[in-house]
Amino acid sequence: MKVLVTGAAGMIGRKFCQRLARDGAVGGKPVTSLHMIDVVAAGELPGAAFTVTSEAANIADRALAPRLMADRPDLIVHLAAIVSGEAEVDFDKGYAVNLDGTRYIFDAIRAENIMSGGDYRPRVVFSSSIAVFGAPFPDPIPDDFHLTPLTSYGAQKACGEFMLADFTRKGFFDGVGLRFPTICVRPGKPNAAASGFFSNIIREPLVGQKAILPVPETVRHTHATPRAAVNFILHAATIDGEKIGPRRNLSMPGVCVTVGEQIEALRKVAGATAVSLIERKPDEAIIKIVSGWPECFEASRARALGFVAESSFEDIVRAHIADELGGKVGG
Amino acid sequence: MKVLVTGAAGMIGRKFCQRLARDGAVGGKPVTSLHMIDVVAAGELPGAAFTVTSEAANIADRALAPRLMADRPDLIVHLAAIVSGEAEVDFDKGYAVNLDGTRYIFDAIRAENIMSGGDYRPRVVFSSSIAVFGAPFPDPIPDDFHLTPLTSYGAQKACGEFMLADFTRKGFFDGVGLRFPTICVRPGKPNAAASGFFSNIIREPLVGQKAILPVPETVRHTHATPRAAVNFILHAATIDGEKIGPRRNLSMPGVCVTVGEQIEALRKVAGATAVSLIERKPDEAIIKIVSGWPECFEASRARALGFVAESSFEDIVRAHIADELGGKVGG
Repeated sequence: MKVLVTGAAGMIGRKFCQRLARDGAVGGKPVTSLHMIDVVAAGELPGAAFTVTSEAANIADRALAPRLMADRPDLIVHLAAIVSGEAEVDFDKGYAVNLDGTRYIFDAIRAENIMSGGDYRPRVVFSSSIAVFGAPFPDPIPDDFHLTPLTSYGAQKACGEFMLADFTRKGFFDGVGLRFPTICVRPGKPNAAASGFFSNIIREPLVGQKAILPVPETVRHTHATPRAAVNFILHAATIDGEKIGPRRNLSMPGVCVTVGEQIEALRKVAGATAVSLIERKPDEAIIKIVSGWPECFEASRARALGFVAESSFEDIVRAHIADELGGKVGG
Repeated sequence: MKVLVTGAAGMIGRKFCQRLARDGAVGGKPVTSLHMIDVVAAGELPGAAFTVTSEAANIADRALAPRLMADRPDLIVHLAAIVSGEAEVDFDKGYAVNLDGTRYIFDAIRAENIMSGGDYRPRVVFSSSIAVFGAPFPDPIPDDFHLTPLTSYGAQKACGEFMLADFTRKGFFDGVGLRFPTICVRPGKPNAAASGFFSNIIREPLVGQKAILPVPETVRHTHATPRAAVNFILHAATIDGEKIGPRRNLSMPGVCVTVGEQIEALRKVAGATAVSLIERKPDEAIIKIVSGWPECFEASRARALGFVAESSFEDIVRAHIADELGGKVGG
């Protein structure tokens, strides 16, 4: 199986490629090659028993996708995107990468499909986002809630979803769109993203560092670990397309908890000392942004189709400790 | 007020332009000029007291929109589209006109908006369609039902909706998207469209001609007259954008009836002789297509915002007699 990953240098892309290297197969089929694309080279992939190539390239470059698809990868994991904050600031760049770039990829696959007389019909896994939804929300948000993006990123991802479903319906490829919940605990350093605190208040105390909590403990949100996100992609790569039906874009499951419940889970797993490192410092700007975010998703279809997230926030904390801290808590 | 209409040679476009000529104003503001665009020239517009120009041009031509917007029209009514059947057969053409063409128009308005320092911010009325929805449906379909197009046309219109909302949110223009129900009674000759019978069974008997009914009388659907469609556009051209809020795309109201109720309305308005001209001739292919179509829409938001359709199918029959038959029934 030949695999192509766009956005391979991103956090989820890297973890997905590492998982491929570890497993050596997708759904029982051995991986024979992996081509990694990102605007910066994705770097080494130690331990892979298959051919690995890495290329620094931009999907907004119209010439790229036809060249990539000429190799006819069996699985295309399309994660490359301009993230929400940047797409909001740089309107042209967001549309160029998230809408046009996605269209170039889909069009290039279609061209190969037509050239092959319909034989070439790869699985495409597309990373969408809960940003396709916009407030006000019902609680929980059902699978058939309308798409009302309130950001350019959300609008671009929503267009990607429709193209994915349409190209799939026409038989050019076999697409699955995944609306990822917020990824928590996000590894790495604290960053400026408005959503950063969801991870910061867990990740930092677990290594003996202070963390700022800028919102009330009543704030509710849905989370899944990086490990769950990689499992979503792997499941989407192997699931029977017939079972999905025409609605190819799925809200992924996650753990819906309040910040207070997050903190309680941290206390149970890592003790009161960890919790004492969380400093409450309300930030009105962040409180306002977060008030427009979705809280809980039913994700009934995804669950019925076998997509599995953690079942409690304690599991999320434990997964972070296992995957990022070598099983060890403390500074 | 300078008005630009794309798709001006289409049935709704022509009727809208004729209405402008008759009224001479939109929402109390005198029309000073009207530029009509279509792939075929829209023809004469007798009786207009303002400057009328007509141009045969294709919105899929990337150079067109910047030239059109350089004139800074105050109202842009964007109706041009490849219709459902053709977009399904000619995939490239559908995307080129319905998605790219719409994007070119929106991008060109944005460029003028930026050049004007934000001063130029026209009203854009975009014709979307109930084809953004796909079966299975709840009954009635609420305003917050998700978009699940099952045709390329529907997918392209749905992308147009998201771009419209996003460009509006960013302040580049002030857009309103209208999801038109099926237009009935459609004037002209019977055509090959699967939906043709909804109009045929009314229009033909009213002039003493036979009409074929290919589906059972239990089939239910939502209809609005060409007159109502023009009123929707006019209302959308003048409504206070603030009142609409961020959800800029609205399912329009209509009359939801069964075919049996359509026939009963025809009997009440035109008598048993007209009804006797309807010949039942079940067509399995059409029955299958129609079974995937939406039936009734709540259209609560549009109604609350003042969009008005007919209130009964008898009104629809009477509107056709008044607007197309000079008030006279019979062969």
